[in-house]
Amino acid sequence: MGLIDYTATYTDQYQLAMALAYFKSRKREDRAVFDYFFRKPPFGGGYAVFAGLENLIDLLEDFRFDDADLEYLETVGFPTEFLDYLRDFRFRGDMRSSAEGDVVFPTRPILQIEATIVEAQIVETATLNLLNFQTLVATKASRMRAAAGERKLSDFGLRRAQSAGGYHASRAAIIGGFDSTSDVRAGRDFGVEIAGTMAHSFVQSFDDELAAFRAFAEARADDCALLLDTYDTLESGLPNAIVVGKEMAERGEKLKGVRLDSGDLAYLAKRCRAALDEAGLEEVNIAVSNQLDEYVIKSLLEQNAPIDLFGVGTKLAVGAPDAALDGVYKLARSGGNPRLKLSETTEKITLPNRKQVYRLSDESGDWIGADLVALEDEKSFSTMRHPFDRRKRMNVAKYKREPQLRAAMTNGERVVERRTVKEISDFRAERLAKLPDEYRRFDNPHIYKVGLSDGLYEERDKLIEHYNRKES
Amino acid sequence: MGLIDYTATYTDQYQLAMALAYFKSRKREDRAVFDYFFRKPPFGGGYAVFAGLENLIDLLEDFRFDDADLEYLETVGFPTEFLDYLRDFRFRGDMRSSAEGDVVFPTRPILQIEATIVEAQIVETATLNLLNFQTLVATKASRMRAAAGERKLSDFGLRRAQSAGGYHASRAAIIGGFDSTSDVRAGRDFGVEIAGTMAHSFVQSFDDELAAFRAFAEARADDCALLLDTYDTLESGLPNAIVVGKEMAERGEKLKGVRLDSGDLAYLAKRCRAALDEAGLEEVNIAVSNQLDEYVIKSLLEQNAPIDLFGVGTKLAVGAPDAALDGVYKLARSGGNPRLKLSETTEKITLPNRKQVYRLSDESGDWIGADLVALEDEKSFSTMRHPFDRRKRMNVAKYKREPQLRAAMTNGERVVERRTVKEISDFRAERLAKLPDEYRRFDNPHIYKVGLSDGLYEERDKLIEHYNRKES
Repeated sequence: MGLIDYTATYTDQYQLAMALAYFKSRKREDRAVFDYFFRKPPFGGGYAVFAGLENLIDLLEDFRFDDADLEYLETVGFPTEFLDYLRDFRFRGDMRSSAEGDVVFPTRPILQIEATIVEAQIVETATLNLLNFQTLVATKASRMRAAAGERKLSDFGLRRAQSAGGYHASRAAIIGGFDSTSDVRAGRDFGVEIAGTMAHSFVQSFDDELAAFRAFAEARADDCALLLDTYDTLESGLPNAIVVGKEMAERGEKLKGVRLDSGDLAYLAKRCRAALDEAGLEEVNIAVSNQLDEYVIKSLLEQNAPIDLFGVGTKLAVGAPDAALDGVYKLARSGGNPRLKLSETTEKITLPNRKQVYRLSDESGDWIGADLVALEDEKSFSTMRHPFDRRKRMNVAKYKREPQLRAAMTNGERVVERRTVKEISDFRAERLAKLPDEYRRFDNPHIYKVGLSDGLYEERDKLIEHYNRKES
Repeated sequence: MGLIDYTATYTDQYQLAMALAYFKSRKREDRAVFDYFFRKPPFGGGYAVFAGLENLIDLLEDFRFDDADLEYLETVGFPTEFLDYLRDFRFRGDMRSSAEGDVVFPTRPILQIEATIVEAQIVETATLNLLNFQTLVATKASRMRAAAGERKLSDFGLRRAQSAGGYHASRAAIIGGFDSTSDVRAGRDFGVEIAGTMAHSFVQSFDDELAAFRAFAEARADDCALLLDTYDTLESGLPNAIVVGKEMAERGEKLKGVRLDSGDLAYLAKRCRAALDEAGLEEVNIAVSNQLDEYVIKSLLEQNAPIDLFGVGTKLAVGAPDAALDGVYKLARSGGNPRLKLSETTEKITLPNRKQVYRLSDESGDWIGADLVALEDEKSFSTMRHPFDRRKRMNVAKYKREPQLRAAMTNGERVVERRTVKEISDFRAERLAKLPDEYRRFDNPHIYKVGLSDGLYEERDKLIEHYNRKES
């Protein structure tokens, strides 16, 4: 079993209140379609890396109210006939989704759920909770991967993570491009590489630093990385590490690395590299940590700091500074009718009905920087329209269209093949490589276009008019 | 069982690497003392509300490696004799702690763990993971409670929370002063009140808004709150809610509330209040939501917005903008000797040995705004010294001293009485009320003093000298 023992009370109270109202108003078997999407890419960037899908499928396949749930719901006033109904609750709906690890953009559906309205409503909270957070962290990780180039990246964030959120942060870190995590339970459950060095407390607990280093080298001959800054990096940590590195070499072993966790990391890395090389320890890696993010990593490497591994904690694990992705779950169809949410902010008006999203590429397969959102059953695609500006449209007939939403669950069961976290991460790398550089810039990136088909544009406008007529 | 099924692999890889080194170097039975503390109060404020203790005690009482853990650790190279040792791993140590819900301050120990060094090291990650996050959120919640005065506060954050972090965020929200949460599983497991209204999708799924409101009122006559902004708050939502409110009144029922989720919340609340009152619906509450935090709540109330309940989501659940508390876990004693971590940043030098923290108050019991950190066995307390400035000291002989660290676990078992979340929240209110206003200001608050006893000051300086001598 995974770390988290979800039951169907992993939801908001109002989902159950609405479910009860549907139950009583004989709408409980109405089919509904909901879209999951976000409105703004995190971190001021131009894209997001979609993550969390496999966990969501696992959750939904097994999402039910257990006895403790039902007993509790009785105490807070839900009526018996409704509790009997919830006892048999299963998610039996369909899910169509972008592939986990793919690059996704604002306002277009990333995932669509179609189920009875009660089912679709009860699973809303878990859907948002799982997808928003992992997408946030995988995106953050992908930015650090871009900054770090070929250097190793390791996630050290569990201690500063938001409680058990750290478990999924570790998974999302790997999807976004990290090589390893310190989180042992995530390693166990997600099959990802675990890594680490030593803590200051280990060095402190011995009477001198050299004794501590020797004890660690003896216990971890195959995976020995020494932390240099407990007392003084250059005066004490570095010379002691060199002593131990040479002793290991004499025994036919190899000191794997040293870690710097304070001070000026570029300056110290250069001094350490020079001293290690001079001692014949050219193969000893230099790892650094301490409040890193994509900007610090970039800046350290611009100064040619000879760093082999970056250990990243807080800012990765909580997806700082955003800390949340604004993903939403909006009704697009119910009871046989397309549905829409109006808003005084035009950009917040939702897209009605079952939809498909197409990624456009030219004849050589290169992405042109646009996703086209269309009605699911639409067949001809000559133009792509700006979502709100009537005057803006482009001819897209000549482009290839790759459908983005594919069946992930049917009748409540997984139909998409399960992939390992490593496979998802490889897919992320492949997809991100197709996204032109200007969309991947950290700040003020080029804006990837998301436009509407003629059919969807007209259906939405018809509905807006319909609601406006009703109000007046 | 709770939502999260912890096993002892809920830790960082390096804790196990160090444990192995201790195991091999015959230090495994060495006793160690670790301090948990933070260096800076979150949100630019002057204090933090300590939370997460009960969950940590529950975790530690039952923290062990299960078969899946041990099988996994074998695959990543841990030797058999060490795995046999881990099979019997239990936390059998002692914990002394501030009371959960108390007001705490930077640099002074909040919790102290004393155990074999292997036990103390393996539980470090879980300790930081649980305490940092709940303390962050409880502190954030307490700021909103201060802003909201007597109005109700409800947590709506689960959907934007960091995965299962939301579960503990809901608990911490109540400790910090919220009245209720939307999180049903948190309601079930922590015995806290759950609450909610309805979503836009509910209104959209009916052919018209009035039919949706009527269906909801019928299903939830005792707890009916209607969301007004699906189409148009003043033109449609409000008049329809008034119709339903009057219908309910005729049936001898009461419409409980309306919710505003967009637009100018102060303006709309005033318009709604006036119209509801005019319709004889004076008892209908007005709830608002949409990107709230303590500053927005304060500003809405300064404009006399007639708001009865604030629903707070993202910024509460992730503890925005900080998103993490910088709590650390530092070795203070091991193998019979006091221990210290040096640092080039003077303020980061740690405090050695077993300690007690005293809160000082004057003869009438009023807090004077200072915590004194002393050696545990120290008996006379005439002066309190500034941690680093030799010239600064104050006479504290005349003050009453309330010891802050009390036994919470002994030999791995809980010794502190279990309290409900409600009791912890009441205690928080009582303690915060004792903290003078100037320390509770949102920005640039007065700085609460944390000073050292003569004994601790001297012991620390002796150790610093000892290490400096060794290095040179």
